[in-house]
Amino acid sequence: MAAESFPVHPLDRGGLRQRINAALGDFMDRQARVLADVGEGMVPVTAALNDFVLDGGKRLRPGFCYWGWRGIAGPGRADEAIVRAATALELLQASALIHDDLMDSSDTRRGKPAVHRRFEGLHGENRWVGSGESFGSAAAILLGDLCLSWCDEMFGASGVDDRALRAAKPLFDVMRTEVMAGQYLDVLEQAMGGGSVERSRRVMRFKSAKYTIERPLHVGAALAGADPAAFAAYSAYGLPLGEAFQLRDDVLGVFGDPERTGKPAGDDLREGKRTVLLALAGERADAAQNEVLTALVGDPALSDTGVKELRAVIEDTGALADVETMITDLTERALTALAGAPIAEDAREVLRELVDAATVRSV
Amino acid sequence: MAAESFPVHPLDRGGLRQRINAALGDFMDRQARVLADVGEGMVPVTAALNDFVLDGGKRLRPGFCYWGWRGIAGPGRADEAIVRAATALELLQASALIHDDLMDSSDTRRGKPAVHRRFEGLHGENRWVGSGESFGSAAAILLGDLCLSWCDEMFGASGVDDRALRAAKPLFDVMRTEVMAGQYLDVLEQAMGGGSVERSRRVMRFKSAKYTIERPLHVGAALAGADPAAFAAYSAYGLPLGEAFQLRDDVLGVFGDPERTGKPAGDDLREGKRTVLLALAGERADAAQNEVLTALVGDPALSDTGVKELRAVIEDTGALADVETMITDLTERALTALAGAPIAEDAREVLRELVDAATVRSV
Repeated sequence: MAAESFPVHPLDRGGLRQRINAALGDFMDRQARVLADVGEGMVPVTAALNDFVLDGGKRLRPGFCYWGWRGIAGPGRADEAIVRAATALELLQASALIHDDLMDSSDTRRGKPAVHRRFEGLHGENRWVGSGESFGSAAAILLGDLCLSWCDEMFGASGVDDRALRAAKPLFDVMRTEVMAGQYLDVLEQAMGGGSVERSRRVMRFKSAKYTIERPLHVGAALAGADPAAFAAYSAYGLPLGEAFQLRDDVLGVFGDPERTGKPAGDDLREGKRTVLLALAGERADAAQNEVLTALVGDPALSDTGVKELRAVIEDTGALADVETMITDLTERALTALAGAPIAEDAREVLRELVDAATVRSV
Repeated sequence: MAAESFPVHPLDRGGLRQRINAALGDFMDRQARVLADVGEGMVPVTAALNDFVLDGGKRLRPGFCYWGWRGIAGPGRADEAIVRAATALELLQASALIHDDLMDSSDTRRGKPAVHRRFEGLHGENRWVGSGESFGSAAAILLGDLCLSWCDEMFGASGVDDRALRAAKPLFDVMRTEVMAGQYLDVLEQAMGGGSVERSRRVMRFKSAKYTIERPLHVGAALAGADPAAFAAYSAYGLPLGEAFQLRDDVLGVFGDPERTGKPAGDDLREGKRTVLLALAGERADAAQNEVLTALVGDPALSDTGVKELRAVIEDTGALADVETMITDLTERALTALAGAPIAEDAREVLRELVDAATVRSV
C-alpha cells in the first residue's frame, strides 16, 4: 500500500493533481456541514480529517483511475465527473492509512502525529477521564470509518451517468475487498513471522499491485465502457509494475538513503516488515546468516551496526541481486504489455513514463 | 445503537426476518468466493464474518427500511430487490458492532467471543509471534471495514432500479455519517465524564433514534419515491420512538431483570455508560448523592450492594420517574405522528404495534 518510491509527476499531466485536490476540497466542505449539524463536539473531527485528507498525498490511485479512463475515452471528452469519481479512491486510501497507522502503532504520518495520536493528545490537553490511548484508538477507528463510507458516497455522487457507474461499481467493490483482505494477509504474515516468498508475494499482489495500479486502471476503464481486451491489457501492465514498485520500496526500506526516503536508514528492519526481500534472504541464508536475521530483524532498538550486518546478509545471500533482477523482469513485462495495449497514445505515454521511472536503480 | 429491548416481532410480519436472513446468506456466499480467491489465509476471516453476520441479530434496521418502503408502496408490489437493499443496512450494523466491541474492549457479543477476542484466540492457538491482542485488534478493524464496504455494495447490487437508488443513496449516505458521528460523540461524552443531559440526548438522537429508526424509514421511503410529507411523518414518528426505546434500554441497563436482559444486573453502571438517566440523576443529586455517583459509576468491580445504592440515588433524585415520563411523552408523540402519516394501513399497523410494545413498563 505504501508505494513510497512512486514517481508521481507523469500522472500529473494537465494539472490533474490540482484538480483532484480541488474535488477533494469541495467534498470535504460538504461533509464538514453534515458534521457541523451533528454538534459542536465534531469540530476536532472535521479539522483532523481536513488536515489528513487535504494535506499531502500523491493521489496515485485517482491518477491511475483517471488515466485508465482516458486511455479508453481518449482526449477531448468532458472529464469533470470522471475526476470526481477517480478522486473518491483517495478517501479509501485515507481510511486505509488511518486504520493502518493505528494497527501498526505508528506515531507519525507525513511528519505529523498519526490520527490516533492526535486524539490521544486532545484527550490529554483537555484532561478528560479514562485512557487517552483508548480515546485516540476509538477516534481513529471512527474517522477511518467515515472516510471509508465517504469513498463510495463521493464515487456515486460524482456526476458520472448511471450506466458508467453500474459498469464500474463491481470493480470498485472488489478493489475494496481485495485491499482489506491483502491487509489482513499482511498482518497474518507478520504474525507468522514471515519466511515465505510465495506468501509475501501474495500480500504484495493484493495490497500493492492490485490496489494501487490494476484496480484503479480497471475502474477508469469501466467508467469509459472498455471491452475485455482493455481490462486484460491494464492487468498485464499494472500487476507487474505494481510488484516492481513494491519491491523497489522494499529495497529502499533497507538500503535507501534517509535523505531520499524521508525515513531513518533501515527503518523497515526495525519494524520487522516481512517483505519478499527478507523472505528470499531467509530462504538462502546459512546457519550463521539465519542467526543474524532471527536476532536482529524486528528489533526496535537496532543500531546502525545492526543495520549494516543485516544489509550484508541480504547482499551476501544474493537476495538483493535477485530482487533487482525481479524488478527488471517485471518492468520489462509491464512495458511489453503497454506497447500492445489498445489505448490512446497520450495515456500510453503517461503510463510508460511511470515505468521508466521505476527502472532507475535508486540505491 | 443497542436498542436491546426492542420488540422485533411486529416487523417480522410476512416472514420478513427469514427473507432478510436468506438475502444475507446469499450475499455472504458471494463474498466468501471473493475472499477464497485472495488466498487460504482468508478462511478464518470468512468463518468469523459468517458467524457474526448470519448468526442472530434482530434485523431491526432492515425491518424499518422495508416497512418504510411498504408504507409508501403499499402491499402487492414485487419486493425482492427492496428486501435486498434493506438487508444491506444489517452490514452497517455488523461493522458498527465489530468496531464498537473493540473500542469498548467487550469480551463477548451474543454470548460468543467478540471478533477481536476470537482472533486473539486464533493467534494463541497457533503460537504466532508478537502480541495476540494487537493481532486481534487489527483483525477486528479489518473485518469491520469489510462489512462497512460490503454494506453499500449490497445496497447498490440489490437489483433496485437506478432511479430509486439515486433517490435513496443520499439518505443512506447521511445515515452512515450520522451513526459514526454519534458514536464519536458517545466516546467523547464518556471521556468528558458525562453529566450533560443535553449532550446525552444528542448522542441518543444520532446513535439510536436516527440510525435505528428514522433513517432506515427514510431510505425505504426514498426507494418508493415518497414525497416530503412522508419523510416528515417518518421523522415525527421515528425520532421520538427511537429516543423512547433508548431510554427504556437505559432504564433496563440499571434496573432490568438479568433473566430478561441477558446481562448481569447493573452492568451499565459497572461500564460507566453515560446515559440521559445518569445525567439527570447527576443534575439533581445533593452532595451526598453526588458522592455515591462519583464513587461508584464506572467501577468494574461494583458489588450488588453498590448497584442497589446507585439505584436508590437514581430513584430518590427523581431521575427514574422523569425518564419514565419522558418515555410516555415520546411514545405519545410517536403515536400521534403515526396516526396522521400518509402511509398504507398495513405498515401503519406494524409501526403502531412497535410503539405499543414500548409503552409497557418492563421494570
